Amino acid sequence: MKLGIVGATGVVGQEAWRLASEILGAKDLEVVGFASTARTTDDGKNIHALEESVEEIQSCDFVINAANADQAKWLSGKLGPNSFLVDNSSAFRMNEDIPLVVPEVNGHLLSDYSGKIVANPNCTAAILCVAMNALKPFGLKRAVVSTYQAASGAGLPGLEELKSQLRQWDSPVDTWNTEVFGEPLILNVLSHNSMARMDPDGEAFLYNDEEFKVVEESQKILDLKDLWISATCVRVPVIRAHAESVTVDLEKEVNLDTIQEAFAQAPGLKIVDEPLKRSFPSPQKAQDQDDVLVGRIRQDLLHKKTWHFFIAGDQLRKGAATNALQIVKVLRDRG
Amino acid sequence: MKLGIVGATGVVGQEAWRLASEILGAKDLEVVGFASTARTTDDGKNIHALEESVEEIQSCDFVINAANADQAKWLSGKLGPNSFLVDNSSAFRMNEDIPLVVPEVNGHLLSDYSGKIVANPNCTAAILCVAMNALKPFGLKRAVVSTYQAASGAGLPGLEELKSQLRQWDSPVDTWNTEVFGEPLILNVLSHNSMARMDPDGEAFLYNDEEFKVVEESQKILDLKDLWISATCVRVPVIRAHAESVTVDLEKEVNLDTIQEAFAQAPGLKIVDEPLKRSFPSPQKAQDQDDVLVGRIRQDLLHKKTWHFFIAGDQLRKGAATNALQIVKVLRDRG
Repeated sequence: MKLGIVGATGVVGQEAWRLASEILGAKDLEVVGFASTARTTDDGKNIHALEESVEEIQSCDFVINAANADQAKWLSGKLGPNSFLVDNSSAFRMNEDIPLVVPEVNGHLLSDYSGKIVANPNCTAAILCVAMNALKPFGLKRAVVSTYQAASGAGLPGLEELKSQLRQWDSPVDTWNTEVFGEPLILNVLSHNSMARMDPDGEAFLYNDEEFKVVEESQKILDLKDLWISATCVRVPVIRAHAESVTVDLEKEVNLDTIQEAFAQAPGLKIVDEPLKRSFPSPQKAQDQDDVLVGRIRQDLLHKKTWHFFIAGDQLRKGAATNALQIVKVLRDRG
Repeated sequence: MKLGIVGATGVVGQEAWRLASEILGAKDLEVVGFASTARTTDDGKNIHALEESVEEIQSCDFVINAANADQAKWLSGKLGPNSFLVDNSSAFRMNEDIPLVVPEVNGHLLSDYSGKIVANPNCTAAILCVAMNALKPFGLKRAVVSTYQAASGAGLPGLEELKSQLRQWDSPVDTWNTEVFGEPLILNVLSHNSMARMDPDGEAFLYNDEEFKVVEESQKILDLKDLWISATCVRVPVIRAHAESVTVDLEKEVNLDTIQEAFAQAPGLKIVDEPLKRSFPSPQKAQDQDDVLVGRIRQDLLHKKTWHFFIAGDQLRKGAATNALQIVKVLRDRG
């Protein structure tokens, strides 16, 4: 089995390469990397120049695109007759004919899918849906989400910018590099840096792209087209792993045991919730693992059908590379 | 006019001392500081030992308590015949006979108040109510709040712990001092460190004290005893100024201009909201000023009576010292 990784030098591409043998098994696995230009990485991997390597791409059984939407569209026209594209960009996510997959949630969509492209969700939406899906049996009426997103969600430039500010934190603010986030992220909290997107009424740019993605993609992944969901997306000075504060209104009245049991049974989810020990999900606990952590699970103080919880998940793993590799695994295993 | 500050060496006490002449005017103002033990501060202020200074306390026209609830209770029995206690602890906040005041919101309660104690709210609740009050004319039905709270909200020990982690960020995590927050706060996000409080049904400890305060105190300050409000309180690696992501459901359907105008007219509130320039409230923008900043003002994508906004306010100023001094000013000016 030959796996191509496009955008192999970026944060998600590197992660996919690192995790490939762990998730797919090392046996008979060959991984080839592509980037805009050919190079040899520090650890000795040969990276092919994408646009000069069409034959190499066509020889791949699976291609994971960890580059942007333009690369995704270009790749979609270059696939070999038996190859699949698992695309981590936003190019095809909202395309009605293309499944947007978190395997634990809607992996069943792949069993009789005859297309060649599968979309990998936005990192914040993917992590959220792993937890939300566990509550679907109780009737999801509404979700209000506020995020605490890591710098590496903005790729290597975002990660390097935060690290440079860490090294400089006691020097004057005006000497800091703030190109990616616009103002200092260290010792600060910023509205998500994605582009402002025109509102549906065409009158203003009040939401950022990330917030639209969380709303639209979660509805599609959970197969709840009319779910009332809203998101406020915020960057925090964290290296990796996103956290999310989630409030859900349910149709049914259930008790704490039932909710905890639903979370405990959910694949890809791990409960970390010990109030008296102050042990809850945090980005540092969630990083470098595939499970999404859930805690602070509590019934609303005033309304019994409303619940609050807090999740943390490694957005480079479950939010991106791991999820893409899990999709590859499902496609491979279905034969 | 003689102003006593109890807890004068803590973060809020120091801030109150620094701001006193700015807010109350320097003319005829004498400030005396109290702490558990007598000392002279680095900048040459004489601090009295609290329990040995009853006469000095009784000579104060106003005493601001920036120490804890035990000190507040002790002080309440030691006030002079013409002196007032403005208490920043939680000792009296939910006492029905004692007003809990954010001057811009419910300062009118002080005009014919005959008691000697006024409670200063929790920092997160105070900042929130400055913004929420602006929307009260449209009928506040429900609020969902997630916070991004600064380390200095946990006093000098919290502040010093974050700073020590900043200096050590590239050394092994297990060498870091994590006494206050339990795990590293630098490059992390943690559930609020306040004590878990028993839930109303007496069965579990699912909420922390800070979350109860935001709910109960906001209802009292806004004079909306039945307001459905919920809070998830979270610490972020920020030196000072809290931020809050707020979703409100209103009774009335209003448009963006009306909401913006209501915020623009609200005393103590300043709009910072330029999506195309990515200019929004942040802790670093809010620090060292008395105004609460509001931005990301937007109608819900799916329901017209629901609005989202993001606020940031200096919790040591408007959330504590400034608000206490503003209460002193109202009491002094009413004669």
